[in-house]
Amino acid sequence: MRAQAKAEAALARALADEGIAPQSAADAIAAAAERVGAAAVYAEEARIGHDVRALVNVIRTEIPPDARRFVHLGATSMDVVDTANAWRYREAVEKVVIPRLGLLASRLIALAEGEAETTQAGRTHGQHAVPITFGFAIAEYRALERRYLAHLGLVPASHSTQIVEPEAWSDLAHACVTALGVMANLADDMRHLQRTEIAEIAEGFGAQQVGSSTMPQKRNPVSFENVKSMWKAFMPRVITTYLDQISEHQRDLTNSASQRFSGELIAATAYAATRLGSSIDGVHIDRERMKANVGLSKGGIIAEALYILLAKHGHADAHEAVRRLTVEAERGGRSALELASLDPELKPLLAKLTPAERKVLDQPDEYRGLAPEVAREVAQTWRAKLAGVLPE
Amino acid sequence: MRAQAKAEAALARALADEGIAPQSAADAIAAAAERVGAAAVYAEEARIGHDVRALVNVIRTEIPPDARRFVHLGATSMDVVDTANAWRYREAVEKVVIPRLGLLASRLIALAEGEAETTQAGRTHGQHAVPITFGFAIAEYRALERRYLAHLGLVPASHSTQIVEPEAWSDLAHACVTALGVMANLADDMRHLQRTEIAEIAEGFGAQQVGSSTMPQKRNPVSFENVKSMWKAFMPRVITTYLDQISEHQRDLTNSASQRFSGELIAATAYAATRLGSSIDGVHIDRERMKANVGLSKGGIIAEALYILLAKHGHADAHEAVRRLTVEAERGGRSALELASLDPELKPLLAKLTPAERKVLDQPDEYRGLAPEVAREVAQTWRAKLAGVLPE
Amino acid sequence: MRAQAKAEAALARALADEGIAPQSAADAIAAAAERVGAAAVYAEEARIGHDVRALVNVIRTEIPPDARRFVHLGATSMDVVDTANAWRYREAVEKVVIPRLGLLASRLIALAEGEAETTQAGRTHGQHAVPITFGFAIAEYRALERRYLAHLGLVPASHSTQIVEPEAWSDLAHACVTALGVMANLADDMRHLQRTEIAEIAEGFGAQQVGSSTMPQKRNPVSFENVKSMWKAFMPRVITTYLDQISEHQRDLTNSASQRFSGELIAATAYAATRLGSSIDGVHIDRERMKANVGLSKGGIIAEALYILLAKHGHADAHEAVRRLTVEAERGGRSALELASLDPELKPLLAKLTPAERKVLDQPDEYRGLAPEVAREVAQTWRAKLAGVLPE
Amino acid sequence: MRAQAKAEAALARALADEGIAPQSAADAIAAAAERVGAAAVYAEEARIGHDVRALVNVIRTEIPPDARRFVHLGATSMDVVDTANAWRYREAVEKVVIPRLGLLASRLIALAEGEAETTQAGRTHGQHAVPITFGFAIAEYRALERRYLAHLGLVPASHSTQIVEPEAWSDLAHACVTALGVMANLADDMRHLQRTEIAEIAEGFGAQQVGSSTMPQKRNPVSFENVKSMWKAFMPRVITTYLDQISEHQRDLTNSASQRFSGELIAATAYAATRLGSSIDGVHIDRERMKANVGLSKGGIIAEALYILLAKHGHADAHEAVRRLTVEAERGGRSALELASLDPELKPLLAKLTPAERKVLDQPDEYRGLAPEVAREVAQTWRAKLAGVLPE
Repeated sequence: MRAQAKAEAALARALADEGIAPQSAADAIAAAAERVGAAAVYAEEARIGHDVRALVNVIRTEIPPDARRFVHLGATSMDVVDTANAWRYREAVEKVVIPRLGLLASRLIALAEGEAETTQAGRTHGQHAVPITFGFAIAEYRALERRYLAHLGLVPASHSTQIVEPEAWSDLAHACVTALGVMANLADDMRHLQRTEIAEIAEGFGAQQVGSSTMPQKRNPVSFENVKSMWKAFMPRVITTYLDQISEHQRDLTNSASQRFSGELIAATAYAATRLGSSIDGVHIDRERMKANVGLSKGGIIAEALYILLAKHGHADAHEAVRRLTVEAERGGRSALELASLDPELKPLLAKLTPAERKVLDQPDEYRGLAPEVAREVAQTWRAKLAGVLPE
Repeated sequence: MRAQAKAEAALARALADEGIAPQSAADAIAAAAERVGAAAVYAEEARIGHDVRALVNVIRTEIPPDARRFVHLGATSMDVVDTANAWRYREAVEKVVIPRLGLLASRLIALAEGEAETTQAGRTHGQHAVPITFGFAIAEYRALERRYLAHLGLVPASHSTQIVEPEAWSDLAHACVTALGVMANLADDMRHLQRTEIAEIAEGFGAQQVGSSTMPQKRNPVSFENVKSMWKAFMPRVITTYLDQISEHQRDLTNSASQRFSGELIAATAYAATRLGSSIDGVHIDRERMKANVGLSKGGIIAEALYILLAKHGHADAHEAVRRLTVEAERGGRSALELASLDPELKPLLAKLTPAERKVLDQPDEYRGLAPEVAREVAQTWRAKLAGVLPE
Repeated sequence: MRAQAKAEAALARALADEGIAPQSAADAIAAAAERVGAAAVYAEEARIGHDVRALVNVIRTEIPPDARRFVHLGATSMDVVDTANAWRYREAVEKVVIPRLGLLASRLIALAEGEAETTQAGRTHGQHAVPITFGFAIAEYRALERRYLAHLGLVPASHSTQIVEPEAWSDLAHACVTALGVMANLADDMRHLQRTEIAEIAEGFGAQQVGSSTMPQKRNPVSFENVKSMWKAFMPRVITTYLDQISEHQRDLTNSASQRFSGELIAATAYAATRLGSSIDGVHIDRERMKANVGLSKGGIIAEALYILLAKHGHADAHEAVRRLTVEAERGGRSALELASLDPELKPLLAKLTPAERKVLDQPDEYRGLAPEVAREVAQTWRAKLAGVLPE
Repeated sequence: MRAQAKAEAALARALADEGIAPQSAADAIAAAAERVGAAAVYAEEARIGHDVRALVNVIRTEIPPDARRFVHLGATSMDVVDTANAWRYREAVEKVVIPRLGLLASRLIALAEGEAETTQAGRTHGQHAVPITFGFAIAEYRALERRYLAHLGLVPASHSTQIVEPEAWSDLAHACVTALGVMANLADDMRHLQRTEIAEIAEGFGAQQVGSSTMPQKRNPVSFENVKSMWKAFMPRVITTYLDQISEHQRDLTNSASQRFSGELIAATAYAATRLGSSIDGVHIDRERMKANVGLSKGGIIAEALYILLAKHGHADAHEAVRRLTVEAERGGRSALELASLDPELKPLLAKLTPAERKVLDQPDEYRGLAPEVAREVAQTWRAKLAGVLPE
């Protein structure tokens, strides 16, 4: 209602600029719009059953009689409602969503950098793949930063075009929902890293905090669960924005109720960013456990390295050879590497390895490629992009 | 919170029934649960960061020390939350949704009966098809009543099994959303019948009500638009219930936030039923216009009757013959029936028509088959089904 | 098209039964409908641009001239299309979906029974909770069987009412999607049990099967991933059935394309059931690992038992006492139980435990309550329900 | 599979560029990739149960033994699958979707320009509002062109970044779905303009085309209905792209099935554009009926003009005065303008009108503001933007 009154004031000033209304009338309307009270407008709406006309009527009672005819002159309700909504959403995105996503991004940047060297098992399909570092894993959520910048890009656009067409609102909803999706994905991974069997991180807990009402030992990842849950609650609402694209002829009003819930999606995005940010901040990282977990697969984690090195030194079908070794290793007690050393075909190839290549096989937690460098590089790139944008 | 306290009281009584807790402890817990205040629980939750344990702690402070250990004994938080939610949703469905849907259904029944004889153009694809009656058209929304009875069936089921499994909640959400869909469909049709060119009904308007802030003549179908809009806002939320089916192992809590919005869907269904019911109540029906509209297609509306009668009296390809007539009628000034009378092949067949058959062609608004009877029959059937169920 | 021809035959027989058409005409139509070829109908459709009329025309060319006028007499296209679809969907559900879901259910029953005694860590929020058995965990997916019976219930209903109203189709879609959801949930849990750190089960692998194109050691849970993925692909399609509820006046045809994809959802449900069933069949269960994992939390898993026993023997705030013990245990090297034995307040209460109670604390993998009995009971109940229903 | 083979070839060339593989090996791999047959790959996949490795194995059999170890060296399956998909989708968007949307856009431009002067009733809420022109109405769907340009913008982006991250694919899906939404909205309006009571346009019909199998007179708007229906079938699929954002740790494969349907959304967008374009092309416009419909509301359509002119010439509450007039006009036989002429308060204000102002009230079909100019301007702007982009 405050935003709609602003729109009426802007209209009055435009009528004065065009020479249609006298300046004094525009001033009176703008002043009245500034002080109009919600209670009075709702009372008038209850009487006449029309929200925007109710606002117009209340402004009219506050100004000199000869200025009254210029209030809302030539405008439709939707001109006022759409302008007000565009202004509200832009304010919310600029002043709430972007700073909070920015804060979350800056925390992730710090984490990526701080843990750039912390070796962790890379996991595809829930199975250990090749070693990475925890900082590298965090740097992979950079899509979040892309969404963040997408929001930034959205703001100047909305300045000029106004979010009045349903497609523009749908684009904003899509941006919010994909940002929520990136956050849900990050939260999911943090949840899994807290599994009893993995236990590489732990959600921060207050000294008095209770984890379960029946199991006193529990430290449930409630904040990360909550972020995932917010995504589940709000993601489907994009469908509503698609439904609101269908409006008959010059307009129907079947978006009258659905549009009232639009602000909730923006609020949910901001809320999730804040909650995830503070959870990330409080997370406890168990670097020893990360290292120990890398060793769990008994050398299986270096199978890729072994196959690439065998191929490099001349084996024609190294992938198949190593696949057979790992099947055999799984059945018996020896590691794939031991089996390779005993294999008449592979033994001579292993002898060709350089010391650096050999070290990769003997110390799998060092087989993490460029992970530390990538983590740092991504962190630096995004810190630079955020600089100047993020509020102090 | 009130519902969760009830669940704790029920648990205490069950522990007493099993001989685990003394009866006096159960009585003390039940009495405390009755008077527990939300403010105290929220304060405790702020301290310990766990909602159900906060409730337990507050109940404990209100009872003798030796009864305290029996509060919540052996239960998980979700035992309490799920039981409380099942109770809340059942109450809301039984006491709010069903009576309101019932009231809407009874209004539709009265309308179907009252307008059983009012001839109206049947419309498929937005085109005039064969005449029906307005009462018949209303009787077609009986799917609404089926949803209504489905709700009734749902209630006894929930008594025994509790809505604790996500599939049960998903079923309830699906029932709400399809009920909203039937209402949206009805609302859409009512909107279209108010189009300036059709104008067969008009939404009731208060004497002071303003239809448009800029076009003083407008009488927009705002209530019917609102019902459609509620459907657009809430229909996609079924997706959230499907997402909440996925819960890891014995349970995760990624439904912690999403489940908090569940009640809104039930409330939306009740709201839409009420608003639609009162709109239907206030609708103005223009029976003259309905009759006039039947005549609009200049005899085209009896093309089906003409083809069936020609087939009955021996024409081997009556559909094609009449199709050609209507194409010709559209180009020139004569009606399809006039053209048929001049056609050497069709003329002798037309001569075979009985007087009753001939009347169908001459008075198309009487060609409405069993529409009045069906309208009355459906109305009577459903009135009987609702009797005894609907609150007085 | 085959199904639509059947519908035309049924209509002809009904016209004969009513005395409108001669029996010979009905026989001719039914015979022609039996042998009508798709190619001829498509050729006619290309000529006249109407699918059902094309079928009618082709049947007409196959029968004596005086029978032609009775083909499709008085029916609309949608009468034929809807009847044909109802018949097709019922066939698909009865003959494909139900048997496959039944087979999956019977495999789960066998697994629940076979593993009724296999102790496994119960997991809530990904954290170890109280011990259960693997058979009990499997028995918890019984919601699948409920969906299965729901399907059975659906079939007799569809015999009488026909799946012609959009709500009936939407109900079937909802039943399929929730069945897919139960399967996706089961598949997700099976995936997580295959995590390198958990490793309690393994997806069956062919001797020649390759798990990863680059990491030769990988045994990815591709079948379980595929079932989850099918749910992601098909679950959102319920939205389409809600959209198809909205049809203007007596009908529009904005479901012309959307309805063509309906069968895919039924097929996807049957496919997922088959794939999940054979994956469950081939799964390798590592019972030793399950037992070992129970011991992972160093006694934390018996915190609930400890608190309930302390409460039973008189401690007024046993939950809080045990919560503090587990926090302390986590910091130092001693288990919560050891700490309890040293605590002056708790020591005397521990001395009151019966031998059976003490055993629970000392052998946590025996603290699994009624899990084996529940697993067997659920298995027997469902086996009885499936008997006679499942094809031999 | 063709696209994946291209990706393997590109990888081999990159290995040669880096000096890891000899140039001759890269050439051999690229040549084999060019001629690899689908049947051989599927046969190998059936044997080893892995699609990408099957392709690798087939390529290996086609090249000299010493080149084999360089096929797929160091790449994961998803490196190949993602690269192949990015290439396929970019090709489909560039070569199919964009040209077809462009053709549709150019048809709308021509229509907007050709009908820039054709007066039509503006309709909000299905009610006549102020007159516009048909060309202006068409120009309002320009959001379609924005989507079109958005697609264009998407292409260069995808060149550099590859559509590998789920967010990029989700953005493309969102762009397709909003384009489908604009088309569905246009199709819906075209359907309504064909209603028997409105009849301002008619879908083109072949001379032999049958509109209804039972009502020979029908000319159903089947193509426009089909476009709406495609939107209903494909719009919900955006949800799948959001679900595919959630992928555990470095990757899981729960998008294995869901991603296979991605291409269908692109195809559906192209199909809808083509079908809508040819329907627009064949539409018959009844300009006389458009003009006649403007007169239907008996002067109500100039209520806005009347209120603005009265306000301009000094009436303090012109909106309320005209609202009362239209209520009175609706009850009696006189138009709002006649009643105004008889009103002692309004009569002197009407006398102040300039001849041009008076003409607006007397000839409502001329009260259409800048509609013709806007229609032409929009058409010219978009024609310029499309020039050089659209294929000849």
